[in-house]
Amino acid sequence: MRVEQVRGSLVEAWHDVHVAVVDSTGRLLARSGDPDLVTYWRSAAKPFQALPLVEDGVVDRFGIGTQELALCCASHSSEPGQIALVRNLLAKIGCSERDLLCGPHPPLSERVASDYATRGVRLTAVYSNCSGKHAGMLALARHHGWPTEFYTRLEHPVQQRCLAEVHRWTELPLSEIGTAVDGCGVVCYGLPLRNMALAYAKLAGAKFGMRNAESQGERREASDPAQQFRIPHSAFRIVEAMLRHPELVAGEGRPCTEIMQAHPGRVIAKLGAEGVYCALLRQEGLGVALKVADGHGVAAALALAAVLEELGLRPRPASLTARPSVNTRGETVGELRVNGRLEK
Amino acid sequence: MRVEQVRGSLVEAWHDVHVAVVDSTGRLLARSGDPDLVTYWRSAAKPFQALPLVEDGVVDRFGIGTQELALCCASHSSEPGQIALVRNLLAKIGCSERDLLCGPHPPLSERVASDYATRGVRLTAVYSNCSGKHAGMLALARHHGWPTEFYTRLEHPVQQRCLAEVHRWTELPLSEIGTAVDGCGVVCYGLPLRNMALAYAKLAGAKFGMRNAESQGERREASDPAQQFRIPHSAFRIVEAMLRHPELVAGEGRPCTEIMQAHPGRVIAKLGAEGVYCALLRQEGLGVALKVADGHGVAAALALAAVLEELGLRPRPASLTARPSVNTRGETVGELRVNGRLEK
Repeated sequence: MRVEQVRGSLVEAWHDVHVAVVDSTGRLLARSGDPDLVTYWRSAAKPFQALPLVEDGVVDRFGIGTQELALCCASHSSEPGQIALVRNLLAKIGCSERDLLCGPHPPLSERVASDYATRGVRLTAVYSNCSGKHAGMLALARHHGWPTEFYTRLEHPVQQRCLAEVHRWTELPLSEIGTAVDGCGVVCYGLPLRNMALAYAKLAGAKFGMRNAESQGERREASDPAQQFRIPHSAFRIVEAMLRHPELVAGEGRPCTEIMQAHPGRVIAKLGAEGVYCALLRQEGLGVALKVADGHGVAAALALAAVLEELGLRPRPASLTARPSVNTRGETVGELRVNGRLEK
Repeated sequence: MRVEQVRGSLVEAWHDVHVAVVDSTGRLLARSGDPDLVTYWRSAAKPFQALPLVEDGVVDRFGIGTQELALCCASHSSEPGQIALVRNLLAKIGCSERDLLCGPHPPLSERVASDYATRGVRLTAVYSNCSGKHAGMLALARHHGWPTEFYTRLEHPVQQRCLAEVHRWTELPLSEIGTAVDGCGVVCYGLPLRNMALAYAKLAGAKFGMRNAESQGERREASDPAQQFRIPHSAFRIVEAMLRHPELVAGEGRPCTEIMQAHPGRVIAKLGAEGVYCALLRQEGLGVALKVADGHGVAAALALAAVLEELGLRPRPASLTARPSVNTRGETVGELRVNGRLEK
């Protein structure tokens, strides 16, 4: 599978795509390219970095709502409403913007970025697309009585706690998870696409409103004694938060939000930087992880929409079927589009 | 050869590079990937789109200087001095900004773009990086008495004249040159990298101040009766203009300019959109054409600098040896760097 930049009658540039589609037992059901490609999970790891908030009782302790929890899993657009929610969360845990260690950057939404530039809005740490995740990490530190300083560092208990959660869901030994510094300063995780997809697939076991019930994941595991993993109840609250608030997981007009809104309750889609995209198909019990080899973000979104359509989420949002190339004169001179299918 | 985005201990993304290095007879002396890859020449075709200005007597007729001619070959940075020169050229030919059919866009130089944004400069057609080329095309139309309207269209004599020049230098039959609409609205040319490199290599035959002298290219051709092409004297004025004014071919701090300034008089480097880069090594009599498959522009510049170094232009400018990746906290978390060499 590749995403092609077409101009006139030629493919002018192309973006190779590697895909792993697995079920919650880790069985590889479909692929493209190398499903074992090792790369950084980047922001597609956020739901798993937020899981300790539920698991350890942080959400209940501080009364963190589903909107705030969705933002902990988000690469948000820095929309005013999103920023207000992150500020709420900081206030609930007795922290302030000054405690955030993420660096500012222009909003990921071009519309919001342009609006703020026009209005001269000063972009501080809370405007980082990762500010929800960082606020969540501060909440975790507050809850456990860990220092709120230097919470981004690998040796800090916050990062060690998140790393343990990543280990648990990806089923990779800690020694096989690479670590590096992410764009926002926290730890990011290097692992195979197949294991990223597995973690998402396992979220399918999280059922709404079933605190101790037999989940799809648990049933599968019961028939496979080698599979000891139990879907924790905490996962359902993460899945619930993201499914209820797709507009907070990214923002208006952005791919994660558009894909989730097109198929309400059926899919979680989460991008990562440098061409990573992951998804959970709840009813199908599938996890998807893909990487555009050269890191092209728009290509990754088009590829994910195509993969999800092939797996049954029809149709793709129109905005993600192909992306017209418009030149400086406003003429449409080509398009970016997906070529190829999954191998099953 | 590929350009790798490294983070921590992993290659997080990579950009495949295809390269052709040929001499003026078209002999392939070095390569990487597919030297016959067909793609659009984009802005790397500009010196050949400017050649009719000398060839047809337009430069002498209107008193077009070497600075203005360099800008006709440029993807300039929209620097104030560059814009002033384009306006001069338009005045000399009795045209105005309103005749330019290129669309505006933010300057290719981030510094200039940021400065204009701060100062609220209204970006009109003359600020397009292609405004010199467009002014040159208007000059060609004026000279021949062709209409100045619709000069961007394939059927207009201006575009037909440029296409004939591309055919002549690339030695490709017209029927084998693909055409499409470029980012600025004029015709762009689809052809193999090897033929792009050949056209640049043939510019090596253009000697300074030798109106009818035996050029390197002519000597080579004399020993090869199959090679009928003669280096026209017009080429020397294009090469001269670009070599004299590397600061006009792109702009301060941009790769074409930095490469040419690092090796004065020895090299012409010209980028094209979507990861294309071409170069002439004058003393060596070599032409280079490369394409980063996914269109990544910074990767293309790093790859060109590496190729030129391998061909004898040592050392690369420091800014083009590797590009550090800095996160939103200002931490250096990785780098973009070239891996691999030419195959000879």
